[in-house]
Amino acid sequence: MDSKIPSQSADFSAWYNALILAADIADYGPARGTMIIKPYGYAIWEHVQRLLDTRIKAAGVQNCYFPLLIPEKLLTRESHHIQGFAPEVAWVTEGGGEKLEERLAIRPTSETIMYDTFSRWIHSWRDLPYMVNQWANVMRWEKRTRLFFRTSEFLWQEGHTVHATYEEAAGEADRALRMYEEFSKEVLCLMVTPGKKPEHEKFAGAEYTLSIESLMRDCKGLQMGTSHHLGNGFANVYGIRFTDEHGIQKIPYQTSWGVSTRMLGGVFSGHGDDKGLILPPALAPYQVVIIPITKSGEYNEKINEAVAQIVKSISQITRVFVDQREYSPGWKFNEWEMKGVPLRIEIGPRDLSENKCVIVDRLSGEKQSVSLTSLIETIPILLKNFSQRLFSRHEQFTKEHTAVGLVGEDFYEWIESGKGQVLTGWDGTLASAEAAKARAKVVISTLPLAPEISLSSLTDPISGKKAQYIALWTKVY
Amino acid sequence: MDSKIPSQSADFSAWYNALILAADIADYGPARGTMIIKPYGYAIWEHVQRLLDTRIKAAGVQNCYFPLLIPEKLLTRESHHIQGFAPEVAWVTEGGGEKLEERLAIRPTSETIMYDTFSRWIHSWRDLPYMVNQWANVMRWEKRTRLFFRTSEFLWQEGHTVHATYEEAAGEADRALRMYEEFSKEVLCLMVTPGKKPEHEKFAGAEYTLSIESLMRDCKGLQMGTSHHLGNGFANVYGIRFTDEHGIQKIPYQTSWGVSTRMLGGVFSGHGDDKGLILPPALAPYQVVIIPITKSGEYNEKINEAVAQIVKSISQITRVFVDQREYSPGWKFNEWEMKGVPLRIEIGPRDLSENKCVIVDRLSGEKQSVSLTSLIETIPILLKNFSQRLFSRHEQFTKEHTAVGLVGEDFYEWIESGKGQVLTGWDGTLASAEAAKARAKVVISTLPLAPEISLSSLTDPISGKKAQYIALWTKVY
Repeated sequence: MDSKIPSQSADFSAWYNALILAADIADYGPARGTMIIKPYGYAIWEHVQRLLDTRIKAAGVQNCYFPLLIPEKLLTRESHHIQGFAPEVAWVTEGGGEKLEERLAIRPTSETIMYDTFSRWIHSWRDLPYMVNQWANVMRWEKRTRLFFRTSEFLWQEGHTVHATYEEAAGEADRALRMYEEFSKEVLCLMVTPGKKPEHEKFAGAEYTLSIESLMRDCKGLQMGTSHHLGNGFANVYGIRFTDEHGIQKIPYQTSWGVSTRMLGGVFSGHGDDKGLILPPALAPYQVVIIPITKSGEYNEKINEAVAQIVKSISQITRVFVDQREYSPGWKFNEWEMKGVPLRIEIGPRDLSENKCVIVDRLSGEKQSVSLTSLIETIPILLKNFSQRLFSRHEQFTKEHTAVGLVGEDFYEWIESGKGQVLTGWDGTLASAEAAKARAKVVISTLPLAPEISLSSLTDPISGKKAQYIALWTKVY
Repeated sequence: MDSKIPSQSADFSAWYNALILAADIADYGPARGTMIIKPYGYAIWEHVQRLLDTRIKAAGVQNCYFPLLIPEKLLTRESHHIQGFAPEVAWVTEGGGEKLEERLAIRPTSETIMYDTFSRWIHSWRDLPYMVNQWANVMRWEKRTRLFFRTSEFLWQEGHTVHATYEEAAGEADRALRMYEEFSKEVLCLMVTPGKKPEHEKFAGAEYTLSIESLMRDCKGLQMGTSHHLGNGFANVYGIRFTDEHGIQKIPYQTSWGVSTRMLGGVFSGHGDDKGLILPPALAPYQVVIIPITKSGEYNEKINEAVAQIVKSISQITRVFVDQREYSPGWKFNEWEMKGVPLRIEIGPRDLSENKCVIVDRLSGEKQSVSLTSLIETIPILLKNFSQRLFSRHEQFTKEHTAVGLVGEDFYEWIESGKGQVLTGWDGTLASAEAAKARAKVVISTLPLAPEISLSSLTDPISGKKAQYIALWTKVY
């Protein structure tokens, strides 16, 4: 691999953009703001889909598919919602050679089209809870593209549920949040902070918004997933009603929750280093790459036989790729480091004569000599260990870059010098939030649900007044 | 289940529309021509995706994702292609609150956007064959909707491959066709006729188009999948070039191939009867439904215990659902017949006292008493047998409704009275094809690749001239 990428510490943004291209993850599409997900990147997304879909279905949520196009009248019926989304909508105005009578929005999200339909499907308490999810593309117009983080079209899943009571909906919003938190830890190997968005940052039309927030290696925060308690405002406007056990007509409560291809941006920016990607084993298209070291020629046949044996043995328990291409071993090492494959197996004449191979760890860079006969036991242990170390590394990073209780200039110094985020108080006023944003582009990314500090001694870092909330102040994407 | 659907023989179209709604498969979307796929219908599509995706990947094709929106200049570069698709395009003209400088098409298919990009990715013979696929939504403007058969937005997969030679591309087009043929037989339990489209019916911009065609129960034909040899016309226009082993720059050859949610329309219309759907076991969301017969109350607990045991035993090898709802057994029988579940298990007090249950077959309607202890062996055999009988039934139906060698008024009588399709000659002229279409709305659906008749004795059914081709003349959707 010849391509070099800029150093992460020197220019994070340049590092990221070059990495996504060099690792064959994605490319820019021809229309402004669009992204092409290349096979290597898409395989990672397929693992996200598969592993999250299993969790979604286990919660009793069924998949479905609603149309891409939403008539303008339908989209605009809930006033808070359309105020939030109107500036980002792409409109279809011509179809089949004719100008349309009514503009059709490409869905920025599907609340409006789904809930109008739910009003025809839901009648009785027996129909509740009603819980569906769809994997789909959505469109939110963007002028500046950043691959995975900000593209006008992106892929996501959106879960939508309907419940008899406010409390049940609250329970479901929390369940979805915890599902995302667990998924982030176990699959993405990323530490996240679950919390509640401040009122001024909630989803347009929601009662409240929960989210998981994660710190990237440039010390900026990324919103990785959201779960909204929608109250009964949408149900009211879109005419969803149900008859309860006593024959009384009521308005149900709703939730919606989603994660998108943005989550992959979090994986790449949360783990990668100057050599390239570092992929969590659960998402890696190849968890193990085998590189035969066959300079001499003499041992080629024997080595190829040994490699075939290894593949036969471990391909049942791991995703493995043998790189037989006509490039030098060094070139291949660089390529697979760029592509973030967790484990690399090297096997050359000397290794083979000892019935061994060398395993190189992408995270630590450490090499170890392993007996060929023990690979079947060793590889799963190494992969599990890799996942744990990757998560611990990110957890450690997050903690080191989260200052606690800073106020005034100390607060600004930590943020502005790029040291990280600050967990401290907030007086609950928009004035403080806006002042901080104006000076340092820092926002209240979330009000953590389980902060490890207590509110009583905290003050607002901007106003100096007594804190009403514990808040995470972060520069965000 | 209270809903009745019209009789299939009395009004096929009314039967079909009512069935799709009554079986909870799909519903109409708010924008004209759009469809909502409900959870029960989407689960069937997920099985199509899973089972076909495995076959696609096994052929060395990798999944990817290209943008939904195609700039007008890009879409219109290949003149035959745009002539074919222009009348069906939906255009985005406004985004982010502004009128766009250039219209953006919602992809009707992705050749143009993919191949423009391939020109940046493909350079050398080492990059070939280049083979990708995407699962995506596409849009072709339609004024009249027929759920699954004709909707403006539909879901599909589109494979796109690039090869060094014409012959290799021809081989790949054939491979994809055979994959679809085998998939139709093994998964959909539908007999299809693989063939080549006549020149005037080929894909806009293709060298030639292969397809699989299947006969529905109203004796109309359905194009279930297509595979195009694209020659090197697209590659030429979109600038794809490669350097061969001798350093010479060449234009590569391409294929594209796809199947869509239309295939599900084929499953519903090819197998269903007056009681509702009949689903192939490979696609059925539930392959087995268990209905406890608990009228008396006395035996309820014992029966529920027995049902729990059955589920525990067979849920590892089959998709099973226990219907414990508070409806009468008869109501449930009707509902699950409407939904096409292959096997129904009934278990009541008398069955239990004999340590047995009753299995009812959705296709034959036959009942058999089966020992509870043998279910684990019996169910897989019954399901396999069900698939074979379902395919044989459709094969038999297709043969009975395919007349051979008819000419003149005999030809028209067979077609116009709805008896089926005709396998006979074609003189190769547009005049014959157009005359038949004008009089009886019959078209040459395909020129079969392996007809069981010989060309030598055949004449064109319209002109009476000597046949140049063996053709399948069919009324189509």
